[in-house]
Formats: sequence, C-alpha cells, structure tokens
Amino acid sequence: MTASPTATDSTTTTIDALNASVAAAHAAFEKGRAASPNSRAAWLEATAAGLENDAGALVELAQRETHLGTPRLQGELKRTVFQLRLFAEEIRQGEHFDATIDHADAGWGMGPRPDLRRYNVPLGVVGIFGASNFPFAFSVMGGDSASALAAGCAVVHKAHDGHRELAARTAGIVIAALEGAGAPSGLFTLVTGRPAAEALVDHPLVKAIGFTGSTAGGRALFDRAAARPEPIPFFGELGGINAVFVTPGAWTARRDEILAGYAASFTMGMGQFCTKPGLLFVPAGQREEIRGLLSEALSGFAPSELLSERLHHGYQESVEQLRGTAGVDVLVEGDFARMPAPTLLHTTASAVRGDPSILRQEMFGPASVVVEYGDESELAALAGLLEGQLTTTLQAEPDDDVAELAARLADLSGRVLWNGWPTGVTVSYAQHHGGPYPATTSATTSVGTSAIRRFLRPVAYQSFPEAWLPEPLRETNPWNVPQRLDGQWHRRGPAVGTPGIEGPR
Amino acid sequence: MTASPTATDSTTTTIDALNASVAAAHAAFEKGRAASPNSRAAWLEATAAGLENDAGALVELAQRETHLGTPRLQGELKRTVFQLRLFAEEIRQGEHFDATIDHADAGWGMGPRPDLRRYNVPLGVVGIFGASNFPFAFSVMGGDSASALAAGCAVVHKAHDGHRELAARTAGIVIAALEGAGAPSGLFTLVTGRPAAEALVDHPLVKAIGFTGSTAGGRALFDRAAARPEPIPFFGELGGINAVFVTPGAWTARRDEILAGYAASFTMGMGQFCTKPGLLFVPAGQREEIRGLLSEALSGFAPSELLSERLHHGYQESVEQLRGTAGVDVLVEGDFARMPAPTLLHTTASAVRGDPSILRQEMFGPASVVVEYGDESELAALAGLLEGQLTTTLQAEPDDDVAELAARLADLSGRVLWNGWPTGVTVSYAQHHGGPYPATTSATTSVGTSAIRRFLRPVAYQSFPEAWLPEPLRETNPWNVPQRLDGQWHRRGPAVGTPGIEGPR
Repeated sequence: MTASPTATDSTTTTIDALNASVAAAHAAFEKGRAASPNSRAAWLEATAAGLENDAGALVELAQRETHLGTPRLQGELKRTVFQLRLFAEEIRQGEHFDATIDHADAGWGMGPRPDLRRYNVPLGVVGIFGASNFPFAFSVMGGDSASALAAGCAVVHKAHDGHRELAARTAGIVIAALEGAGAPSGLFTLVTGRPAAEALVDHPLVKAIGFTGSTAGGRALFDRAAARPEPIPFFGELGGINAVFVTPGAWTARRDEILAGYAASFTMGMGQFCTKPGLLFVPAGQREEIRGLLSEALSGFAPSELLSERLHHGYQESVEQLRGTAGVDVLVEGDFARMPAPTLLHTTASAVRGDPSILRQEMFGPASVVVEYGDESELAALAGLLEGQLTTTLQAEPDDDVAELAARLADLSGRVLWNGWPTGVTVSYAQHHGGPYPATTSATTSVGTSAIRRFLRPVAYQSFPEAWLPEPLRETNPWNVPQRLDGQWHRRGPAVGTPGIEGPR
Repeated sequence: MTASPTATDSTTTTIDALNASVAAAHAAFEKGRAASPNSRAAWLEATAAGLENDAGALVELAQRETHLGTPRLQGELKRTVFQLRLFAEEIRQGEHFDATIDHADAGWGMGPRPDLRRYNVPLGVVGIFGASNFPFAFSVMGGDSASALAAGCAVVHKAHDGHRELAARTAGIVIAALEGAGAPSGLFTLVTGRPAAEALVDHPLVKAIGFTGSTAGGRALFDRAAARPEPIPFFGELGGINAVFVTPGAWTARRDEILAGYAASFTMGMGQFCTKPGLLFVPAGQREEIRGLLSEALSGFAPSELLSERLHHGYQESVEQLRGTAGVDVLVEGDFARMPAPTLLHTTASAVRGDPSILRQEMFGPASVVVEYGDESELAALAGLLEGQLTTTLQAEPDDDVAELAARLADLSGRVLWNGWPTGVTVSYAQHHGGPYPATTSATTSVGTSAIRRFLRPVAYQSFPEAWLPEPLRETNPWNVPQRLDGQWHRRGPAVGTPGIEGPR
C-alpha cells in the first residue's frame, strides 16, 4: 500500500511555483480565449487521443497507486476519453454560448429598447482539485478539468495525494497533447501539496474552484473561497448517503432481486463511490430473511484494498462510530482487514426518528445500513430527515402511489432513480450529478454537458457595431451557433450535424 | 424629508412573525409548486394589473417617501408592470425548465445509458431585499420578486426602510392580486426591520437571497448566507462606478455631444442609479474647455432632494473624501444643500496609476470624476485598474481599433455599451445586469428574463415511468415546452406564439 505523501515531501509545489503556474495559466487563457469552438474542440480531442494512446501504462500505474481493479480502471479511462469527445461536440454545437440577441425596438413595451446582445464568456483561470476515488474521471483530466477547458478557461489542477505518480504522468500527456494541437502553453498545469492548494484558492487571478472530496475538506475550502476579498464560486461535490426506498409492493414482488442488487451496488469498487447506496429502507418484519439473503449475496464477494491507508482508517472509524450508536446493530458482520469484508448495519424507523444523525454518517467503503419501517405512510416523513443527497432511489411497482415520496426525494436530491441503483453515473446531456448541500455547495452538476456552464459568465453588448461584436453575437453568425433572436431560438440545420432534425416535432 | 425608521419602531417585524411568514411561505410554495406555467403566469399578470390599477396612489406615495419625480416614478411603475407580463410570457414558453431528455441508449459511447431526464425546479422560499433607489422596479414587486415568483418560489420580502408605507401598500396589492388569481395564501409576504432581515437570511427554510444595495451591506449579508450550516446563494447587486472611455477619435468628432450626454446621464435621478457614469476618461489638454462645456450643460439642472437623509450624508462624505485625495481637484463646484447641485471632480491618468482607489469610490448622488489620459495606448491598462463593474462604456468612432480595450471592458463588466450611456437598463431577453465582484456577488443578472434562472435548480429522473414524471419531462409534453431530446432541441411551433418561426434561418 502506498502511504500518502506528506505536504512537505520533495514533490510539493512551492508557493512561488504555484504563482508562476497561475500566471502562465492566465497568459494562456488570454491567448486562447478567442479560439473558435472548432479549435477548442480539437484541443479536447487531442487530449482524449493522448490518454487513449497511453491507456495501458496509465491503467497499470493507477492500479498500483489506488488498488482499483484493471477492468474498472479501463472503464473509467474510457469514460474520461468519451467525456472529452462529448464536450468537444457540445462546444461545436455552441449551446454553451447561450447567444441571445434583442434587436433595437422602438415599440418595446416599457419604452424603446436598444440593440442588446448577450453571450457567455469563460471565467478565466480555475483551480481543480482531483478526487481520490476516480483517478481518471474526477481527477487530472476528469469532468471538472474537461468542462473548464471546454468553457474556455485555463486549469491549474491540484493532484490528489493518493495518486501523484499517475497525476504527473496524466498531466504530462495532457500538456503535450494540448500543445501539439496548438493550444497556448500554460493552459493546463499540475500542482501538488497543501500549501499550493490553499494558495490556489486564494489567488486573485483564480476565478472558480472545482472540487470532489469530503464534506469537511470541501466545506473548509468553500469557506476559504467565500472569504476572499473577491469571493469566487466553489463548485464542490462532497458526496452523500444515497438512500434507497423500497415500497411494500416492490418488496413483495422483488425482495430477493432488490437485496441482490443492493449488495452488488454498495460493495462495487469496495464501496468507494459518492453514489454508493448507504441506506436501504425496507418494510419491517423480515430481519432474519434479509440477513440470510444479504449474507448469501455477499458470500462471493472478492475484497481488495481500499484506496489508501488514510481512507481505510476513516472507513473503520465511521463504521465503528455508527455501530456503536444506540438503536443500531450489526446485520452482517464485516471486518477491517487489509482487504475488508463488507459490513451491514441495521436500524429501525423509530430509532432514526429519535436520532436522525444515524442517517447522516457517510461510511466511505463497503458498508451500508438497512432501515426497517412499519408502514408505507411513514416514508415521506423519513425522507424528510435526510440531508441533501446526490441521489435517492425508489424501488416501487407501477401501481404504487409514490407522488408524495417522489416529490420529497426530488426536494432533497439531484437525481432520483426508479428501480435502479445509484452507482453508475452516465455522461450525457440530461445528467445531473449534484444536489442540495451537503451533497454539493452549488446548484450545478459535475457530470454531463451542463457542467461546462459552471465556468462561464454572461456579458451583454449594447449597440455595438458588427465588426467589434464577438462571433456568436454577430448577425452573420460565422460560427453558426444557436441564437435566441428577439425571444425565439434559431438553430441552423447543418450546425447540429443532422440536417432536418430541427423544427416542430 | 422622511427620517428612516429605526430597527425598533412599532412596525418592525418580530422574529416570531418572521418565522411565521417563512413557514407560511413554505407551505404556499409546496401547494403552488405544481402549478402549470399558465396558472403561474396568470398570477403574475394579476399582480401587474393590480399595480396598474392603483398606479396613481402608488406613485404619489412613492414621490412623498423618495423625492423622486412623478414622471420618473410613473416610468418605473410601467417598467415593473411590463416586467411581470414579460416574465409571465417567458414561463409560458417554458424555456426556464431547460427540459432535457436522454432516451436509453445501449450504444452510448461510454457504455449503455439509462433513460435520463432533467429539468429545473424552484428552490423554495427566497428572501428578497428591496432597494432604496427603485421603490418599484427593485423593491416589493421588482425584478427579484418577479423572477422568484416566475420560477415557482415563494417570496418573503424585506421592505427598504426608505419607503415603508409604499412597501406596505404595494405588498397589500400584490397579496390581494395573487390570492384573487388563485395563488396559495402566503406565497408573498412583507417583513420590516433589521432583526427580521438577519433572521430571514439565517432561516433554514430560506434557500436563496436576492439583494440590491450597498457593497458594505451586501457583503455582510453575503458572508452571513455563506456561513450558514447550509450555505445558500446570495444574489447581490452591489452597484459600481460605470466607467466611460472616450477615444481620441470620438473626442475629436463629438466632444460637445459627449459632454452633454455625460452631464445628463450622471445627474439623472439625482445620480442615484447603480448605473450612473462615475468616471469619464478623456484625452488630456482641454481642461478649461471641459469645465466650460460641463458647467453649461449643468446650468439648467433642476435639483431635488436625495432619497433619504442617511444617503445624503453618505453622498456628502464620499464626495468630500474623494476631493480630498491627492491628485484630485474640483472641476465644477457643487454643494451639499438640501437639493444639492452636481459636483464634478477631476484627476489624471498618472494620479490614478499612483492611487487606483480614486477609481473605486462610489458617490451615490450627482457627482462624477473626469480623468485625463495622455495617449490612447494607455486606456486598456487604465481599465485594468478598475474593479468589477455593472457596465463600462466606449465612446468611439467606427475606425478606432478598440479590440484590446473592448476585451478588457468585457473582462471587468457585465454590460459594455457603444456610444451610449449606462443609465437606462431595458428589461429583455438579452439583458445582463450583473458583473464581476464587487458589482455583484454572483455571475447572474437581476434584470431581464435570465433573472428567473437564479431561483431554479436542476433535478434528474432516471428510468422513471411516464406517469410519475413531471410534465416538462413527459414524452407527451403536455405543457408543450422546449425539450432537448438526445442532444437536439425541439420546439413546437404553437408554443412560441408564432407558427413557423422555428427551423433553419
């Protein structure tokens, strides 16, 4: 097992070096900001190709530093590469500009209106913090970096201490690919260590932070970003509990299948996902059957090491704390060996009503809690005891009346699933990987094409001559982007790649 | 002149009453959240009609409490009513839902994709702080309240102390109109006084704050919102300086016209606009001509009282402080009488390079600063000394090369004008009334249809059956809203009111 490097080891970035990285990133941002969507998309695609070309070595290095399995890491790298290409395609379409044009109108209802045109511009240099548990997809060139580059920002990436060698190798590939594709030098840089991390959040030229990590660490950096002389947005994804609610109807119809799916989901990747189902609400009265079925489902489980010793200790502490809480007992005994066996805890609706903190303890590893409830009518109120979540899940039958419960789940989470499991977060247009605090520190997503919007801000031009307008706002629309003209959206067929797809459906 | 009521006078809302207002607002939010866009639009329209019906009395009351002129107040009320109707039309179109549907796709590039559908839901109860200088358009039912209601939120409005009687009368009209149109009781309430204001920002059921006011007051509330156990977004518009840059070409071609426009703009509404031009950069060497032309332009000025005694004192202090700064002298002497005459200060590029704080002193009243520069090539660097701005303005000729300066102005402001004056902010689709800190505390706008987006957050539904999906996400699209289907936007002709407008242009 690789011990986490300390903040003062030889590879730690000095404050001088951090300042130089930010200055270089700012210069690169200024040079690269006017690039066309096609150019910028090509930069992302070159990066994707660079990672793909070195996939074998990257996965091997990741496996060594994180103990995650090879197929899992191969899948994660595939996702990372796909994401870069999807974002490239998205910015070619130009949706992210949100180009909006109001022509001058002497008859406008509140009085004459000047010509006014608004679009989105990149924020500038952004700081991105890599996560421990996704060494590719939420790390060096993960979703935060990819969306920031797609938006037109420059990125200074703070490597996670858990995979520094991989981070360095990945960054080398990214930097070479960007420069090879003609991106300005300095557009992406890597820094390491806590002093540089704090200085990055504080730096006046840094205009936003992307972060995936713990609630405590994320909140400390959020507070730091908010306390700056110029506060900046802190897009933090801080994890969650991902409660699953099983209706009596679903329990009757699919109990064994649900328990098997649950066991597979909460142990996937050794439970080290921010979407791991940490709570399963089921009807009371079948404790022994549940124990038997889950024990059986877990019997074939092949354990591996957790991401790091530090996380292993944190996992052990959180499980021990929760199992020592009044009203909580052990359903399936696990252990905290080097390769820990899964632990299942058990509690009741009345216990969590008395102590809702039982529902709020994240255990970052292969552990989860089964909560028995008495009556379906309790479920909405039980959901009301939860804090903000990345996901919640309904296991229900078509004729269940879930109106109230579904509304409650949408109130407290960013994604609500029906008869699925929250692990597995596709990268697509509709994805939302976010949720009310403490799931995240903003109303944004860190997965999917919408993630690009985080790193943009609007600017309006009033009565500007065509020659000095940015391309997306010109009447000639040289980049062929969608434009909202006097309140109505217009999109050209060819721009979206599929002629004739536009128009009334 | 009406003295500002203190925080402990008889009309101040108690904490118990504030808590009751928030609880009622939350209950109303829950009842009203499922309303169709048509229903919600009707609520806004009823409010507009209510204000219009009482226009005479409202304007009279506003005039008495704020000393703003009757035509100005009539125009402001017209704007307020227009805004409600525009927002009603906007939510009928359904753009704000951002409905995005990814159908299940076994061939998706990173692996099979489930059915995933995302749209925007309202945040819940929001707190809105009224501004002193726009008793209608940025107060009780101004842009913040209107956009929050349009989004589907409930509003607890903190009345500005400067126009409490008007606030109470306006709130009465709004509440009656909403209830008359079928909106749930409690959807809008009014509170007064500082203790209630602070408790409003702290209340766990309050999910966002809208604010227009001073930098100091706004920052204190921003810090408070960020320090909550659950931090909430603080959409603060804190004003600015609104620098105007005159190129040598424009100066040669239109000097007299520019100075006349400047004099009219900085004294409009007694200079009590957050878009007042507070700086005019002009070529050096014509100090006496400028003094003469501006004195002449201001000679016909008809002064009136400022909004309140408190603001009058603040205005006097800020002008005296700036005129006492080294390198600053008086170009046109004003005064601080009950109805003050305009003051024009004067400085040079070299003085502001030595002390950039000269460029950062907001004077909320009829005062502004003329800055002489030596050479056109200095302008971009001078712009770089400014803090974040709501607006910046270029006065230039068609053959001037403004590329670098225009880029710099877009960096530091939310709206850039060409040969216009920043006072006057139309309400439209493309408007952006915002800008980098300290102009605002977020990347959002408080004017225009985009303001609605501030009060929404996304929720994604995975693999949900049609029957339990929210209307905007259903295949049948019963509200006929725009939907992005598998990456391509689809809008039905009838939904936008103008059949056939969609499609390639």
